[in-house]
This record gives sequence, structure tokens and C-alpha cells, in this order.
Amino acid sequence: MTELGELTDRMRRFAQARDWEQFHTPKNLAMALAGEAGELLAEFQWLTPEESSRVMEDPEEAARIRSEVADVTLYLVRLADVLGIDLVQAAHAKLDQSDKRYPAETYRGSAKKAPPLP
Amino acid sequence: MTELGELTDRMRRFAQARDWEQFHTPKNLAMALAGEAGELLAEFQWLTPEESSRVMEDPEEAARIRSEVADVTLYLVRLADVLGIDLVQAAHAKLDQSDKRYPAETYRGSAKKAPPLP
Amino acid sequence: MTELGELTDRMRRFAQARDWEQFHTPKNLAMALAGEAGELLAEFQWLTPEESSRVMEDPEEAARIRSEVADVTLYLVRLADVLGIDLVQAAHAKLDQSDKRYPAETYRGSAKKAPPLP
Amino acid sequence: MTELGELTDRMRRFAQARDWEQFHTPKNLAMALAGEAGELLAEFQWLTPEESSRVMEDPEEAARIRSEVADVTLYLVRLADVLGIDLVQAAHAKLDQSDKRYPAETYRGSAKKAPPLP
Repeated sequence: MTELGELTDRMRRFAQARDWEQFHTPKNLAMALAGEAGELLAEFQWLTPEESSRVMEDPEEAARIRSEVADVTLYLVRLADVLGIDLVQAAHAKLDQSDKRYPAETYRGSAKKAPPLP
Repeated sequence: MTELGELTDRMRRFAQARDWEQFHTPKNLAMALAGEAGELLAEFQWLTPEESSRVMEDPEEAARIRSEVADVTLYLVRLADVLGIDLVQAAHAKLDQSDKRYPAETYRGSAKKAPPLP
Repeated sequence: MTELGELTDRMRRFAQARDWEQFHTPKNLAMALAGEAGELLAEFQWLTPEESSRVMEDPEEAARIRSEVADVTLYLVRLADVLGIDLVQAAHAKLDQSDKRYPAETYRGSAKKAPPLP
Repeated sequence: MTELGELTDRMRRFAQARDWEQFHTPKNLAMALAGEAGELLAEFQWLTPEESSRVMEDPEEAARIRSEVADVTLYLVRLADVLGIDLVQAAHAKLDQSDKRYPAETYRGSAKKAPPLP
């Protein structure tokens, strides 16, 4: 079993042991995921880009950020489990599209958004 | 190499090939992650909890949701790479804490938030 | 001066008195706004739709929600000030568009998203 | 009636005319608000702080941002209506607290978060 598969299993058992599956609808999990992404955002909101790049040098800040990143990961893994989505497969499929949508030579050094693929 | 390690590498090469590393500060990636989490949210906002549980039965809706989940995954993987965080390790460490914070017998069937661990 | 104008002025003076204008770039304020919207989300994530409708009956929950709604309001007002946007005017302009995009007879009782106006 | 009161009324009539009140639970509106805050975020995610400060100079970018800010405003106003919260009053109450939590002399030029008031 992959490491992501094991994490998914552990989260599922964690929810089952607490009878929390009733709360883990896709709607609620999407909210929890966005809420945690918002908390992660708060760690960076007043930092300059440069400060944000050095954020892991401070042990307390690093611990807070690792904890928020973990929360996002856990809800993402749980949401994917409930929806029956293979995260890694879905991510590669999206990158296949992005390879076509953003040819390296056209978008080098540019943050412009490409028009959607037809 | 794990499947998550391979995805991380592919995203890194994707960014390098386009000279996009300059945009991929932790601050900017946290914003992109939260933005994608917001788009995922929008797929569920008007659905009842029950409708949200059946969302993958409709092929078009399923494709949109798979695509948004993939976007969240890609930015999360990229952010973790830039910050030097091992996502799976961080998630397990958080679950170790949650095991203590939310004893199964006390929190069975309850969505109450536990006080933070001392 | 309108009540929103007065609130805008008070927030501006609050930032000036603390020399916080340097932090209040549109980018940072958009992050703060989204972060607070995420905290508001967290108050509702495990509630059923019905429970969410009765949320102001509990004084403690009501106080937390009022506080989060206030945070969103303050950052929205501050962001609009920094961007030079008249919030009420912009909102009415958007509603003018929505009146055309969502004719009442076509969208009655439907949560479907309309195609964008040409 | 204040300009915010008029906007609240217009949004309420807009929802009533489409029989959309069934969708406008606090839970769903908090999701819609966070989703729109995420779209606003996306407009700023790859910009430097300096670029974000000049964002209204480009007419197309300015129109997109005005539109996203309007969406956030509309859902915030609608959510406050459904919850029975006076936005301006709640914001002033929060600023009263912040005046105490962040004394100007202590927090001048500092983006540090204050401990919560006792």
C-alpha cells in the first residue's frame, strides 16, 4: 500500500472510531479544507515575499505552518476518500492538461493565465 | 521514490521549465492553494448534504470536482516542496496529536472542538 | 457622511496610528479577508443547514459569529478604501448584471449557474 | 434608510423573486462568501506587493477586481441579513476591542498578533 493509501486508511479509521462519518459529507469536508487553507493563509498575510521564503527558519513559526499544512493534507485526503478520487492520478491528469495549456516557450517567466483548453 | 515524491518532482520541473520559481514563494502558493480551495467550495455551496454525497454520479460535475481537487493537490504538493515539509509525515504527526486530543469515547458522535493540547 | 464612509475613515485612522499602512497592500488585505472568511466558514462546517439557521440562538456562538462577520467587514472596507472602490456602488452594478443574467422566471427555485453575460 | 439597508433590501427581494431563500442558509452563504473571497485572492496571487498596489490602473484588471469585491459584498450583506447582524455596528464593536488589544504605541510598525483580550 502507498503512503497516501495508509494515511487515507488511518483517517478513515479515525473518523469511524468517533462515529464522525455522519459529519464527513463532501460539502462539510470542502468547508473544513477551505477553512484550514484560510488559517494557513493567515500565517503569511503580513509577510513580504522574502520573509515568507524564510519562514521555516523560526522554529515556532515552522511548527505552526507544519501544523496548518498537515490539517489541509488531512482534510484533502479524507475528502478524496469520501469522493472516491485518487489524488495522485487526478493531479497527474491535471498536469498533463497544463503541459498543453502552458507551453514552456510561450509562458516562460509569465504569470498570465492561459485561456482554457477547448 | 514514492508516488508523492514523483508528483513533487514533476511539479518542480514544470515550474523550472517555465521559470515560474520566482512566483512560487510560500506566500503566493498559500494564496493559490486557498484560491483553489475556494473554487472547490463553490461546487458544493448550494447543494444539500445529501446532494453533495451523490456529486460524483454526474459525469460533468465529477470532472469539475476532480479537476478542482487536483488543483488543490498540486499547489499543496508544491508548497510543501518549497517549505521543505514532508506532507505525509506532518499529517501523521497531527493525527498523533488528534488521537490524544479527541479520545474516541469522549467525542463519539460529537462535532465539538476540543481544547488545544497543553 | 454615510455610515460606511465613517467606518472606512475609522479603519484608515486605526491603521495610520499604528503605521500599519505598509502592511495594507491590496494583496495582503485580500489574504486577510480570505483568512477571516475561512474562520467564519469554520463556525458552520459541521452544522446541518437547519442548525446553521438557528446559530444566533446560542449567545456564545452568536458572539463568535458576530466577531468573525465583523472581521470580514473590516478587511473588506479597508481593501475597498485602498483600492478606491465604492462598495455599495460596485454591489449595485453587480446586481444590475445579475438581474439580466438570472431572469426570475427562468431561475425560480434553481441554483444553476447562468452562463456569463456576453 | 442607510445605503447598506437599501442594498440589503434589494438583495433580499432579488432572492425572494427567484425563490432562492431556500438556498440562503447561513452555512451556504458563508461558503459563497469564502468562495468569492477565494476568487478575489486569485487576482492577486502572482503579483508583487507593488504590482498589487497599482492593480486599478489597468481597466480590465480593475473591472475584474471591482466585480469580485462586489460579489464578496453582496454575500456578506445577505449573510448578515439572514443572521440578523448589523454589519456596521458589529465592525465598530470589533474596532473598540482592537483599540484596546493593539495600543498604538506598543504595536507601531509591528504586524505581530496580540494575545486575545481576557
